[in-house]
Amino acid sequence: MNKHSCPVIGHIRTPFANKKGCPIQSIYSENAQGRIEILPEYAPALQDVEGFTHIYLLYQMDRAGEIKLIRPTFLDENPHGLFASRHPCRPSAIGLSIVRLTGVDGDVLTVEGVDMLDNTPLLDIKPYLPQYDCFPEAGKGWTEGKSFREKPEGRE
Amino acid sequence: MNKHSCPVIGHIRTPFANKKGCPIQSIYSENAQGRIEILPEYAPALQDVEGFTHIYLLYQMDRAGEIKLIRPTFLDENPHGLFASRHPCRPSAIGLSIVRLTGVDGDVLTVEGVDMLDNTPLLDIKPYLPQYDCFPEAGKGWTEGKSFREKPEGRE
Repeated sequence: MNKHSCPVIGHIRTPFANKKGCPIQSIYSENAQGRIEILPEYAPALQDVEGFTHIYLLYQMDRAGEIKLIRPTFLDENPHGLFASRHPCRPSAIGLSIVRLTGVDGDVLTVEGVDMLDNTPLLDIKPYLPQYDCFPEAGKGWTEGKSFREKPEGRE
Repeated sequence: MNKHSCPVIGHIRTPFANKKGCPIQSIYSENAQGRIEILPEYAPALQDVEGFTHIYLLYQMDRAGEIKLIRPTFLDENPHGLFASRHPCRPSAIGLSIVRLTGVDGDVLTVEGVDMLDNTPLLDIKPYLPQYDCFPEAGKGWTEGKSFREKPEGRE
């Protein structure tokens, strides 16, 4: 089977030591503060990032559970395909979050709106560019009218 | 060095056989049509994706060139850090595009707005959810006032 492999470039430090209490999307944790610690060998690539207000984080969901291609989600009990869902247990194990950048100090970024577990391995940072990334007209598909529900006990 | 590894779940077919003529962002190729061919073993995960109008594609930029942590970009000649840029030659080699979903037929999706090379390996599909992903207030950082410039000859 073909695989993609890429290096870990740093780690994301967050208030969420375990899944209990970890928000499902950063809009539900917009005040949750985090630190991004970039490995020294990649720190030069941060040049000019301080000018952005929002950044994408791509990261390894290293503590995600079993992958089921069709499953209930955090938004409703009905099963949906993983590619129609943002559920963390997915073949790529790649998470995508948009966070607000509040500071840069050497190889450490401070951010708000984190929604991943503490010490999550970071794979990439890309600037969020509203001219490319903002589609207010996009449909909500099956998520229309849904809102976050509490995680059932034991749910991963 | 820690690495992340994940399976290829399919391939993206586009009109762009090589870098010459391949757009740098999908907003510059909004009418460019593509097909996404999902490997049969992952096709069940497409359930309910047809309800979305926009989807994220995460893919392997398998023909990207040499990685330079600070480099000129397609938007200006000034060097910028890779993490402040969407340049394809980056440590993760992971590309991120938002495309419009126009159809689903079994394990094939038809999309508009492709900006990647033909036969690009696909790593993940996530629904674009405007309630989570749209930040019109985001700043543009150093890209403010810049627009796409023609790729200089030989530029990767």
